[in-house]
Amino acid sequence: MATPLTPQNLPLETQTLAVQLKDHSYQIYIGPDLLSCLPSFLEQRHLQASRYVIVTDSTVETLYGSNLQDQLEDRGIKAELVSFPAGEASKNMETILYLAKELLRIGADRKTMLLALGGGVTGDITGFLASIYMRGIPFIQLPTTLLAQVDSSIGGKTGVDLPEGKNLLGTFYQPKLVLADINTLSTLLEQELKNGLAEVIKYAVIRSSRLFRILEQQWDEVLALKSDVITTIVAMSCAIKADIVEQDEKEAGLRRVLNFGHTAGHAIEAAADYTISHGEAVSMGMVVAARIAFKRQQMVFEEFSRFVRLLEKVGLPYVIPSRFTPQQLLTIMKHDKKVQDGELHYVLNKGIGDCEVTVVPEEEILTTLEECTGSLSYNF
Amino acid sequence: MATPLTPQNLPLETQTLAVQLKDHSYQIYIGPDLLSCLPSFLEQRHLQASRYVIVTDSTVETLYGSNLQDQLEDRGIKAELVSFPAGEASKNMETILYLAKELLRIGADRKTMLLALGGGVTGDITGFLASIYMRGIPFIQLPTTLLAQVDSSIGGKTGVDLPEGKNLLGTFYQPKLVLADINTLSTLLEQELKNGLAEVIKYAVIRSSRLFRILEQQWDEVLALKSDVITTIVAMSCAIKADIVEQDEKEAGLRRVLNFGHTAGHAIEAAADYTISHGEAVSMGMVVAARIAFKRQQMVFEEFSRFVRLLEKVGLPYVIPSRFTPQQLLTIMKHDKKVQDGELHYVLNKGIGDCEVTVVPEEEILTTLEECTGSLSYNF
Repeated sequence: MATPLTPQNLPLETQTLAVQLKDHSYQIYIGPDLLSCLPSFLEQRHLQASRYVIVTDSTVETLYGSNLQDQLEDRGIKAELVSFPAGEASKNMETILYLAKELLRIGADRKTMLLALGGGVTGDITGFLASIYMRGIPFIQLPTTLLAQVDSSIGGKTGVDLPEGKNLLGTFYQPKLVLADINTLSTLLEQELKNGLAEVIKYAVIRSSRLFRILEQQWDEVLALKSDVITTIVAMSCAIKADIVEQDEKEAGLRRVLNFGHTAGHAIEAAADYTISHGEAVSMGMVVAARIAFKRQQMVFEEFSRFVRLLEKVGLPYVIPSRFTPQQLLTIMKHDKKVQDGELHYVLNKGIGDCEVTVVPEEEILTTLEECTGSLSYNF
Repeated sequence: MATPLTPQNLPLETQTLAVQLKDHSYQIYIGPDLLSCLPSFLEQRHLQASRYVIVTDSTVETLYGSNLQDQLEDRGIKAELVSFPAGEASKNMETILYLAKELLRIGADRKTMLLALGGGVTGDITGFLASIYMRGIPFIQLPTTLLAQVDSSIGGKTGVDLPEGKNLLGTFYQPKLVLADINTLSTLLEQELKNGLAEVIKYAVIRSSRLFRILEQQWDEVLALKSDVITTIVAMSCAIKADIVEQDEKEAGLRRVLNFGHTAGHAIEAAADYTISHGEAVSMGMVVAARIAFKRQQMVFEEFSRFVRLLEKVGLPYVIPSRFTPQQLLTIMKHDKKVQDGELHYVLNKGIGDCEVTVVPEEEILTTLEECTGSLSYNF
């Protein structure tokens, strides 16, 4: 493939990252004001297409979509825009069929490129659509939420939900480019920002004590969305995820470490019928895992306490509400598709900055869930 | 990947073929009574799964599906069966969603393997379902029609139709194994056999004068479905397709030669609103291409005449019904997704056994369509 070139005149703070996979490699750019650089990127040879279609949701269309379309048209780049109602409820096959028909109406062919502009739902839907429209057309990720920037836009997982569960239909399909414009984070709701921060903390705990320290020490700047700090924590998170995905594109093994906090987290989300946000559920789930690690003496008390204090500072919950029973959560965990051969494979951190996948007996999980429900005592 | 082993005790006439692609290689077996050898294949390590699900249509379920399920169960291999109404009308996203729900009901997970038992529709649907269920599970092709054995089961094209057109949503996704049991051809309708033979003749004209001679000289044995001859012509056809697919998995260039006869063929099918079968339409389409080749002196009269005589012997039409006008067909051809940059790229044979992709001016196509409509005069 052509060597990707970085356009001239990118904002100084921009950080770059290459994802190198067997078949397809691509670049991730992280920095302020990158959306307005999109036309320069599209003028590069390996990103040229017969036409571009921005796929976005109703909220992001108003915030950034129409503006981006105008910018492209101003540069003489033919761009259409299609949108769907914002929200997880749109993440289904009906939306895919609706968008496919829109693409056909527009006249999109195999040389059309899709531009996924929005959060995780938009990225997952657009990636899936790109992977199956006329047996696959190229697409670019333009994530506008923190969660999408550090997580869902990297790794090539696409998909839609079925009434029976989330992401049950989908593909592994890589974008040609990811542009994470951190300026778009300024329009996020606090809750959405927290969802992303929960994943950033996850990366820190499983892979980078340095990232953890930045979050601890520069928290005020993170909160103020200071551009250099945000660029750094997004880029560090992307680098961790990209590194793991490079080693295990199709989720055969290593990639499971990304499920840190997600085993109990998913169970809490499901038990709450998704009235608890993903970030909050993952936060509680990470505490469960960390507490098992602590009790196994893989994490000293000082680290466990720093971890809980960071969650507290961010405003993420670390106690499971007492309306959920440990047995109920365990039952859901056992039904999770990641359970193999009846054994619960669990990602446990080792201190801060390292982790392992290991089998945890049901009894140990139940006890820990109990200890993390209702209140969390430091004296154990 | 593990080296595939051939099970012991395969029928003597069985022919084997390897498809070697970048990421995934697999074997094709062609011969009599191969369905009853399936359990032996599944006992090989690289084809083991937590469970198997036979996906088939209502017709093939009765003919072979229930029997195959029993055979597997008798050997202690856990196999479920799901089916959908036979016919092209089932080739849509509703069927995919229905089958996905059936898989969930059964408890199919990421280690489940699908067995696509049937014709082209079943293969296309099952391959597509396998490629998107939980982001991809393995599947095996068990084609039971001649068309599926020589064409759709090889090459990894999967997909469903939209009201707007055929195969508009789909993936490239390769099976783990193809078993073409030629005994299943005995239950085909004459029309279905002809659909397959049209593709066999296509392969002969574009790539193999030897295959062409076998069809000419051993026609009676082909018609009688004599096992060694059928095995040979199916295996030769598969080898030609596999060779082309190996060189161009994602249809970037070379694979277009497989469209020989399909440019005009698709137009005729569409103009007839699919009341003309695919094989018949391709047959007429091949005559159009061959006639252009003849007029360009790429094919001598004797070859053109052998070609038309073979179609006649097989019972395939070589004259376009006069209810279609050349202009109407040309318009459809120009809307076909294979038209690039407004030019009609056409596959033209060079004699019998070779071909090329070339631009044919509209005027030349129109004139030739006229000459092939209503009646075909040999005196030109």
